Amino acid sequence: MTKPLPRKIAVMGAGSWGTTFAKVLADSVADKGIAVQIWARREDAANEINERHTNSRYLRETKLPANVAASSDPQTVLTGADLVVLAIPSQSLRQELAKFKEFFEPGAVLLSLMKGLERGTDLRMSQVIAEVTGLPAEQIAVLSGPNLAMEIAREQPTASVVACTDSDIAQWIAELCSAPYFRPYTNDDVLGVELGGIVKNIIALAVGMCDGMGMGDNTKSTVITRGLAETTRLVLALGGRLDTLAGLSGLGDLVATCSSSLSRNNTAGRLLGQGLFLEEVNDRMSQTAEGIKSARAVFDLSRAHNVEMPITEAVVMVLEGTLSVENMAARLLSRELKSEGERH
Amino acid sequence: MTKPLPRKIAVMGAGSWGTTFAKVLADSVADKGIAVQIWARREDAANEINERHTNSRYLRETKLPANVAASSDPQTVLTGADLVVLAIPSQSLRQELAKFKEFFEPGAVLLSLMKGLERGTDLRMSQVIAEVTGLPAEQIAVLSGPNLAMEIAREQPTASVVACTDSDIAQWIAELCSAPYFRPYTNDDVLGVELGGIVKNIIALAVGMCDGMGMGDNTKSTVITRGLAETTRLVLALGGRLDTLAGLSGLGDLVATCSSSLSRNNTAGRLLGQGLFLEEVNDRMSQTAEGIKSARAVFDLSRAHNVEMPITEAVVMVLEGTLSVENMAARLLSRELKSEGERH
Repeated sequence: MTKPLPRKIAVMGAGSWGTTFAKVLADSVADKGIAVQIWARREDAANEINERHTNSRYLRETKLPANVAASSDPQTVLTGADLVVLAIPSQSLRQELAKFKEFFEPGAVLLSLMKGLERGTDLRMSQVIAEVTGLPAEQIAVLSGPNLAMEIAREQPTASVVACTDSDIAQWIAELCSAPYFRPYTNDDVLGVELGGIVKNIIALAVGMCDGMGMGDNTKSTVITRGLAETTRLVLALGGRLDTLAGLSGLGDLVATCSSSLSRNNTAGRLLGQGLFLEEVNDRMSQTAEGIKSARAVFDLSRAHNVEMPITEAVVMVLEGTLSVENMAARLLSRELKSEGERH
Repeated sequence: MTKPLPRKIAVMGAGSWGTTFAKVLADSVADKGIAVQIWARREDAANEINERHTNSRYLRETKLPANVAASSDPQTVLTGADLVVLAIPSQSLRQELAKFKEFFEPGAVLLSLMKGLERGTDLRMSQVIAEVTGLPAEQIAVLSGPNLAMEIAREQPTASVVACTDSDIAQWIAELCSAPYFRPYTNDDVLGVELGGIVKNIIALAVGMCDGMGMGDNTKSTVITRGLAETTRLVLALGGRLDTLAGLSGLGDLVATCSSSLSRNNTAGRLLGQGLFLEEVNDRMSQTAEGIKSARAVFDLSRAHNVEMPITEAVVMVLEGTLSVENMAARLLSRELKSEGERH
């Protein structure tokens, strides 16, 4: 039984990634008569999308397709939506969902674009969704990959991964977001896809710190290699799969984030590496880097499962002020490097 | 039984990597009274190293340690050397070895720094060494990792992998090249370490081409991810190990090479991506990029073992003029991307 096309797709959140993904969806379904509607917290952002087809705060001059509309009223956006994309700050997901959930259509599928662990509970976004909404796993999916929003807004080609325990649902979503410049693949390892997208932000902070201290590509690629190894150890301990981490949502996303000056996490790390205090870094950036918010939760999770994550640990210590960036570098290149020696 | 320290270490080749590695060795063994002597093909290069302690053609102002000497006479350099490091162009290894071999000390261990397959035979460098010298596997080792020579010359910290089927010999070499800024680890998967270092040059050409065509980090990290996947398939088919490719000599070296503007392969790819002909690219560069020389041999090897390597295939077609760079991009992002979809 093939699931019918949705009548409408709701995108909850008008930040850079939510707005860009609305464009991907709209470009993908333009000829199918499916409406795409964005929920923007701020009314002026909704008005700008409706009147000028831009979201200049996040996407500068990018023109949104004609079949994208917006509203600041969640009920308006969610009514009739069979696919609901969630693109809100991860630490506010729980409270926003509590407001949204009475308006969800029965049978609506929820797709998370968010990358973070909830502070306090250490839950992944798909777990928060399940807990708050009570929806079964086959109505909850996640999307992750090497997806710097600004490049996709410019229609530079990329690929991504849609994960759901129900492969038919993953395929249904993948078909709804296949724009000429955006190729989604499917996976049933929700945990592996989601954790790859979370931990890479923390590794990107570490790589940014090395960069800020003037270290070269040899050092940075060593941190990337060790970073993927510690992410993989965590995912395997939690029941995810090795090949997920070797793919686009693991290695691919990690490399894109660590390479790009567009990445907030990379930028925040670089500023920390240059000697700025965390408060100064947060002040300078329009959005707090996700890795800064998730690092402690990931580290707690690793502790709870007896997984060694020395890079994550060092980042947490720098963020919490118990380790200087200079000493972090020394730490990553001595104690840390020892672990690969031990593997062989 | 612990192998005694060498009396002397010979480094055959005064290019950028050979000279830099001589510095690493000299810094590592400075307090042990072990001489490090470089063989330079050109007498003026040997004289410059002896008189000014520089090799300005390749390493600009880098000062070589006092315990590094040079000669253009292979017999002088090889006499008394219990460790012989080979750092000569991969396509001339066979003929050079034929000249060197009468001067090798009995029991001398040969360490290859070279990354390439021999054209015509498709042999790895360690295999060419075995064939020409008749030495057993325990006297042949390779070194590979995220090791951009110029960064190491500047003493920016990095790690590397020494591989030998005899783990004691790998450990013996690792201890001889442990400088404060250079940390070697050991592995017994010679094939995996060697092939990782060869194929990454071809993937770096492909990433450079994408870069030259103006593609972003999403696209490039997709090519890196798929590139490591096809390298891993080849290594597994030939009997190497998955974890070698996930480590410093696989993923680490690939990311360093693909990220760096110092990489010849990355640069050559970028020029090809900008529309230059292969002849023009070779003319512009002081040394031919290794990937240009090895691509056909790697592709032949993949064919012989029924391994799909679509990125390598596309690079070979571009180099041989049967595919334009524009069409290569389309190929990598359609047919190629399908394969991950099929894996899940």
